[in-house]
Amino acid sequence: MSNLIEGRNPVLEALRSGRTIGKIWLAKNCARHGAIAEIIHIARTKNILIEYVEPSAINRLSETRASQGVIAFASAKDYVDLDTLLSISQTRGEPAIYLILDGIEDPHNLGAILRTADAAGLHGVIVRERRAVGLTPAVEKAAAGALEYVAVAKVVNIAQTIVTLKQNNIWIVGIDQAGDINYRLLDYRPPTAIVIGGEGQGLSELVKKRCDFLACIPMRGHIASLNASVAAGIVMYEAVKQREAREA
Amino acid sequence: MSNLIEGRNPVLEALRSGRTIGKIWLAKNCARHGAIAEIIHIARTKNILIEYVEPSAINRLSETRASQGVIAFASAKDYVDLDTLLSISQTRGEPAIYLILDGIEDPHNLGAILRTADAAGLHGVIVRERRAVGLTPAVEKAAAGALEYVAVAKVVNIAQTIVTLKQNNIWIVGIDQAGDINYRLLDYRPPTAIVIGGEGQGLSELVKKRCDFLACIPMRGHIASLNASVAAGIVMYEAVKQREAREA
Repeated sequence: MSNLIEGRNPVLEALRSGRTIGKIWLAKNCARHGAIAEIIHIARTKNILIEYVEPSAINRLSETRASQGVIAFASAKDYVDLDTLLSISQTRGEPAIYLILDGIEDPHNLGAILRTADAAGLHGVIVRERRAVGLTPAVEKAAAGALEYVAVAKVVNIAQTIVTLKQNNIWIVGIDQAGDINYRLLDYRPPTAIVIGGEGQGLSELVKKRCDFLACIPMRGHIASLNASVAAGIVMYEAVKQREAREA
Repeated sequence: MSNLIEGRNPVLEALRSGRTIGKIWLAKNCARHGAIAEIIHIARTKNILIEYVEPSAINRLSETRASQGVIAFASAKDYVDLDTLLSISQTRGEPAIYLILDGIEDPHNLGAILRTADAAGLHGVIVRERRAVGLTPAVEKAAAGALEYVAVAKVVNIAQTIVTLKQNNIWIVGIDQAGDINYRLLDYRPPTAIVIGGEGQGLSELVKKRCDFLACIPMRGHIASLNASVAAGIVMYEAVKQREAREA
């Protein structure tokens, strides 16, 4: 993963979250109010170097083309290992709730999913190493800061990881349009991992076999499937809703 | 809007939906099985001209860079006018359920929203003319064929359109993180229009004032808002769920 964080809000979120940042580049022509003023303020408080550079220098470095005149040089956001991820539920004292992504390739989708995972209070996200997008700057941008807060574990083999989760008494719910139960009829209050397939193929066959449940999202129109980040969002918020109902 | 439809599934959906297509370009090196074989079959049935061209010709013409070797030259998908849109609920014999987009600028988001609107069985989508993305090829691609089935009306003034909807006894629910009620505590079974703001600013002030309800999606993490297409999807599926419960 690259060490660059680009754009006003992503840089601000990185500063607020306490992520280690070496220095910040600001475009010389950047208006120094709003988010930029806050970035300057926090950077000074934390003794982080700010360099005022030509906008062209920022554009040359920018990988997202949406730097908004600000780039932070951060220590790389690391993936966590699976054990660390699984310990998060215990730390929070809540039944486990994870999301497993079986091959998301679009950075815009992964970013939107991480953003929703943070908002829904999930304990972490598990991604696949091969044929899947990593935590790139484009993902960071689309995640609107969420990457700072959501633990992400990268695994070689999703099907094998599901076995490990089952050994930890976590129910596995695969979302698949051929699933035999409506997603909202399932109970997400016990420890649960929700599995979402990639944009092209959906869930792989072996992963489907390993799931405890295969659930579908009802489609009333003509199109065969939802965008992956929308599908993930709908199921995550159903889980949240059921858990909130229990707390109430 | 452009007349080009790009990519295997979008072209296939356009053919199936009966949209008027002048001719289809296929890359000479395209493997003629799966979706491509079906495209060729339907095109022959409908007497649509297929031209086998160099891949470079398709790449030159492609606006999405995701043509997958197939481009259809279609008559433009037209926006419908507001009266036509409002008549759809009567035709279906269901209480109205519309989505209003107050300034979505990202084609990926608009495409994902139209896809969800089709899947959730909404009666149509209302978009803003200014500072918003139109029905471009990139939107068509992201909509995965849904553009063929979802009626879209383009209006000059969202706030004024809301007044018209209210005169038609439609309740207006704005989704806003400063909203004072949880989105899932509202009743979506009466005639309803859900209003989603743009990626940057959310709902404009005048639009907020005109809404009957301002509802929030609970955020349990650190991030201030969801991706617009995810937020729209969560609320649309809450509405669907409530309506299905009534039918049952």
